[in-house]
Amino acid sequence: MPDASIFAPKERYSFLDDYSEGAHPQVLEALVASNATQETGYGNDRYCAAARQHIRHHLGRDDVGIFFVPSGTSANAISIAACLRPHEAVIAASSGHVVTRETGAVEAGGHKIINVAPENGKLTPESIGKALDDNWHYPHMAKPRLVYISNATEVGTVYSKEELAAIKLLCEDKGLLLFMDGARIGAALTSATNDMTLGDIVELTDMFWIGGTKNGALLGEAVVVKHPGLAEDFDFYVKQHGSLLAKSRIMGVEFAELFRGGLYFDLARRGNAAAEKLSRSIAGAGYALRAATETNQVFAVLPLGLVKQLQQDFVFYVWEKCGADWAVVRLLTTWATDGAQLDKFNQTVLSWAP
Amino acid sequence: MPDASIFAPKERYSFLDDYSEGAHPQVLEALVASNATQETGYGNDRYCAAARQHIRHHLGRDDVGIFFVPSGTSANAISIAACLRPHEAVIAASSGHVVTRETGAVEAGGHKIINVAPENGKLTPESIGKALDDNWHYPHMAKPRLVYISNATEVGTVYSKEELAAIKLLCEDKGLLLFMDGARIGAALTSATNDMTLGDIVELTDMFWIGGTKNGALLGEAVVVKHPGLAEDFDFYVKQHGSLLAKSRIMGVEFAELFRGGLYFDLARRGNAAAEKLSRSIAGAGYALRAATETNQVFAVLPLGLVKQLQQDFVFYVWEKCGADWAVVRLLTTWATDGAQLDKFNQTVLSWAP
Amino acid sequence: MPDASIFAPKERYSFLDDYSEGAHPQVLEALVASNATQETGYGNDRYCAAARQHIRHHLGRDDVGIFFVPSGTSANAISIAACLRPHEAVIAASSGHVVTRETGAVEAGGHKIINVAPENGKLTPESIGKALDDNWHYPHMAKPRLVYISNATEVGTVYSKEELAAIKLLCEDKGLLLFMDGARIGAALTSATNDMTLGDIVELTDMFWIGGTKNGALLGEAVVVKHPGLAEDFDFYVKQHGSLLAKSRIMGVEFAELFRGGLYFDLARRGNAAAEKLSRSIAGAGYALRAATETNQVFAVLPLGLVKQLQQDFVFYVWEKCGADWAVVRLLTTWATDGAQLDKFNQTVLSWAP
Amino acid sequence: MPDASIFAPKERYSFLDDYSEGAHPQVLEALVASNATQETGYGNDRYCAAARQHIRHHLGRDDVGIFFVPSGTSANAISIAACLRPHEAVIAASSGHVVTRETGAVEAGGHKIINVAPENGKLTPESIGKALDDNWHYPHMAKPRLVYISNATEVGTVYSKEELAAIKLLCEDKGLLLFMDGARIGAALTSATNDMTLGDIVELTDMFWIGGTKNGALLGEAVVVKHPGLAEDFDFYVKQHGSLLAKSRIMGVEFAELFRGGLYFDLARRGNAAAEKLSRSIAGAGYALRAATETNQVFAVLPLGLVKQLQQDFVFYVWEKCGADWAVVRLLTTWATDGAQLDKFNQTVLSWAP
Repeated sequence: MPDASIFAPKERYSFLDDYSEGAHPQVLEALVASNATQETGYGNDRYCAAARQHIRHHLGRDDVGIFFVPSGTSANAISIAACLRPHEAVIAASSGHVVTRETGAVEAGGHKIINVAPENGKLTPESIGKALDDNWHYPHMAKPRLVYISNATEVGTVYSKEELAAIKLLCEDKGLLLFMDGARIGAALTSATNDMTLGDIVELTDMFWIGGTKNGALLGEAVVVKHPGLAEDFDFYVKQHGSLLAKSRIMGVEFAELFRGGLYFDLARRGNAAAEKLSRSIAGAGYALRAATETNQVFAVLPLGLVKQLQQDFVFYVWEKCGADWAVVRLLTTWATDGAQLDKFNQTVLSWAP
Repeated sequence: MPDASIFAPKERYSFLDDYSEGAHPQVLEALVASNATQETGYGNDRYCAAARQHIRHHLGRDDVGIFFVPSGTSANAISIAACLRPHEAVIAASSGHVVTRETGAVEAGGHKIINVAPENGKLTPESIGKALDDNWHYPHMAKPRLVYISNATEVGTVYSKEELAAIKLLCEDKGLLLFMDGARIGAALTSATNDMTLGDIVELTDMFWIGGTKNGALLGEAVVVKHPGLAEDFDFYVKQHGSLLAKSRIMGVEFAELFRGGLYFDLARRGNAAAEKLSRSIAGAGYALRAATETNQVFAVLPLGLVKQLQQDFVFYVWEKCGADWAVVRLLTTWATDGAQLDKFNQTVLSWAP
Repeated sequence: MPDASIFAPKERYSFLDDYSEGAHPQVLEALVASNATQETGYGNDRYCAAARQHIRHHLGRDDVGIFFVPSGTSANAISIAACLRPHEAVIAASSGHVVTRETGAVEAGGHKIINVAPENGKLTPESIGKALDDNWHYPHMAKPRLVYISNATEVGTVYSKEELAAIKLLCEDKGLLLFMDGARIGAALTSATNDMTLGDIVELTDMFWIGGTKNGALLGEAVVVKHPGLAEDFDFYVKQHGSLLAKSRIMGVEFAELFRGGLYFDLARRGNAAAEKLSRSIAGAGYALRAATETNQVFAVLPLGLVKQLQQDFVFYVWEKCGADWAVVRLLTTWATDGAQLDKFNQTVLSWAP
Repeated sequence: MPDASIFAPKERYSFLDDYSEGAHPQVLEALVASNATQETGYGNDRYCAAARQHIRHHLGRDDVGIFFVPSGTSANAISIAACLRPHEAVIAASSGHVVTRETGAVEAGGHKIINVAPENGKLTPESIGKALDDNWHYPHMAKPRLVYISNATEVGTVYSKEELAAIKLLCEDKGLLLFMDGARIGAALTSATNDMTLGDIVELTDMFWIGGTKNGALLGEAVVVKHPGLAEDFDFYVKQHGSLLAKSRIMGVEFAELFRGGLYFDLARRGNAAAEKLSRSIAGAGYALRAATETNQVFAVLPLGLVKQLQQDFVFYVWEKCGADWAVVRLLTTWATDGAQLDKFNQTVLSWAP
């Protein structure tokens, strides 16, 4: 680069999100190693084929379609467009990413989202059932057809196998498809509170995706499509949305590297461990957590004075105010979280005095 | 990678397209060098800022918006969606990429494309004028509002400044926007027949994009938006289409590297030179070219026996048959085209005897 | 008709809705009288021209576009599509017709609806302001751009001039368009609690429509478009939605008849008077109204025994249960409500004993 | 009406189109007779039920869904939206109504139309086959899925049973749906060159509609849906497009009257006969017809002097110029065509001398 100094580390260390750094070094090395060979484009390269093979091994199933797309919003928008007819609607938590952070991409594809109040970030058979009860007046109301959930959820919680199975049961009973946003599925499946495998996920959903961007990749998510008819035509949707990369090998190389062994899960575990470390320090210093830390998101209730002190060296979201003197802050960790910075953060928390 | 052998070079060398390899090594090095620093996401990183600055320098204008998106289809679909109201239509050559190779992405965004027969791959004021004359019956017909052209065109030809200025004049007269697909704008601007600069392009169009995927990048295209109101809101469209990468730094690093000096143009020049070399050999061997080679695409008329012979060592498109014994083949070259393979190809052509 | 007996009155009289009968006899006579002359189609007939002239006279403005469409859903969907760019969203009450009774037509046009809890069926500057506060995270959130309200509201309440002016002020301050669904605007403007004229409505909104279907017409609503640019292109939207009738004269004749004098308001007044009569009887019999009756909708809290008794002779919605023994019922009246049936209903209420 | 004089007949008699007058008097009488009874709305009234029963009798099948919509554009847009998934395309003649006269409504619903050059206004297995051959490059090209034809065609020609059966055979072989626009299906089925019944049409297509607007109704078309799954959900599409009229009884009454006996076909026959009379006079006067007159459209080649003379008393389209001194004019007739005016037109033709 022309002037390296402008790309020096920023002054304050960031716990804002889980996509601040580039790729995990092994992923980058694989990109470098594979750079020069010629490959067929548009998902038909040998790296994508290898990545699919590795992922299918983790899923324990050979009969699913796997499609790589560049972003979480594209994964959600494409999957939902592929599943629904024009008059069909999505049921989602009002906190869901498709509701709050995707610029109306689902609606831009023509579909209504029926909002449901989340419980601990999650949907339940009861809350989904209520949405069905409220949307009965056919054909004046759009027809609920797909349930959208995230695992981990937007507040970092994790579905148990029992919870997911109960939702799946209701969905089958009511003719609904169950779709899981897996932007943070690595964090979910390596959570201490998790009791599911990727194999369970594939059995208990109709479609889901495995997030690369937030767990070691430069970009890319892998959509897993069980229905053979949908899988057969899925590339059309990917292409129509501008998400079929000519040099699809990039995502193939990344996912092959992440899934040929256990790297994907190792990275997620590291992010969770860093969050756990943060949580313990905060609790140890006598502050409350807004919610138990299950994955790589920490929601801590801190005095405003401490928040101000921390902001001198760190960047993070002040999630909401609590009365006059306290605030909830959100802290996000990843495989790349700097241990020294983590210690420094914890030290600041422990040593702060009003 | 687990088993390097499966990623050995393929047996036959490919002249199929200009996206068979990964990134140019300098681009990859920049990605490695910048990998570890923390950056803000979604287009707000320092690399994207630097890339914009470098590109604006080449454009000779500071007052344009520049947005990075992952693919050519996303660049076209987003730009057109941003420009048009629901009842407005696009005028394009029937050979245009948006017509033939984007799975109806423009129509999926709600807009009709009015097809015009191309001349040498291009639109002209006359052919655009005819499209206007044929689409007069308001409000029963969609209203033509945007003219889509590609430079280089889908058949490798290049617009002259005079040709582009004439189209722009008509567009201004008729209230049409002029939009240029620049998937191969590098090849166009370094063609021997070219008489324009990037600065001319920005003046003579309303919106255009600079293709990275086909000229040295792993992925990414840079959309240049002149209209201040559109530029202000453009990120909404990028996000809604799933094209706002969380780790936007990837495209920032790539374009900063390609445009901080003249690398982008050097690479394009190399691709054109390789095509020129192919063309000369083919002509030297006494075979006709379907069209003069202006950029990195060669359309040669070869006897079927020679085609068969070449296919033993090379992959390329057989574009169309010519009578019983001849065929038009398309050959694509890039900065990465292997000189030795090029020589081998040429040697085969020269030495072949029926 | 072949067999008149099958079209005999139904056994039970209906208070279900305000579109159970055909047209007001004067409207029908005008249709008969005008049937044979030749007219230009697609909104360019002399009847539509006359209707526009009459409506403009009631509005007190000559400079607005007026467009006739066949249904309320088409009026809403077309108007909203015409106003918004793809990333822009609607703010509406969660009880709004576009939210609950139009099969996702707004979303099918690509736009998110941000739901707001209604107060007495209405939006307020506060509730709209909260929706703006919650939708700040650009470009990740769709951009609020249009406020949708209904007058009368879905629960029969009426906006005061002060209330509407306060909303309009906020909209202008925040760059929002204000759009009013006038399916029951006749009932609103002839309500005892109303203090506005059609002229006030046109001044205090950006676009609104005057409902014909629910107030004397066979079909048709008149959309009033103030913005000259939108009005110029509005016919394109009407046509694209399949709502530009070839024999537009039908709606022209209807609206000309309804608005050449005061028939439209006379009819609405009759519907309101019938509701008022119902309300007085119900209250006189000692039963509560769920809400004050402002227009042609009555929400009464009745014992289940009485409800059952009434259902022997009448059809109406049982809106919701209240404890074990009571229910809220909804009763709708119109210009066509049969006075004898009304008396019979009231008599049943008064004479009922548990 | 206030001032009857403004609604006097226009000075020049019109042969412009087939929707210049209102409804056939019998239809209007049925509307008057049925006006006062209370009916359920949104397609559930007794008149719609009767109309469906009458139409099914003509179709010779009880197992099809029948849906009433207000316009031809809504019939086409709704039917096509109901049949296609987002990546699927329509094949249509470049002269097709959905291509040239519906403001891009099909594209607004998200679907590409692949244009085919018509032969005598029609598609053929060969021309459809060529469109399939040209659209092979999956997933880069939208997938052809539905063939759109009109009968009578836009130039007044009529499909033979053999022609339609051949298209149907190809469609079944290639997995395509066959959809017929029946705006002028009455004229087609009563043409002297026709050899099909409504029963044949229902067997040889997947979906089609029966046009009311151009053959005796005030408004309305009846869409016939064979596929049970589509029929089950079709009302959602109708509602979402704003085409489910609250007072659906209007269209029910109209179609019940048109189809309880043979009125629909009688009216169409009258329109055809008037066109035949015009054609004979024109030919008798020594002028050529551009095409044989099969239905209610006449395309005549007349000297410009005669055209000018005719324009003093009549309105019609001058379709195209033929050299310096001649023009093709289009003349449209209907059940309502005035015999005296027809005679006057013919007299002018016969008596004209240059």
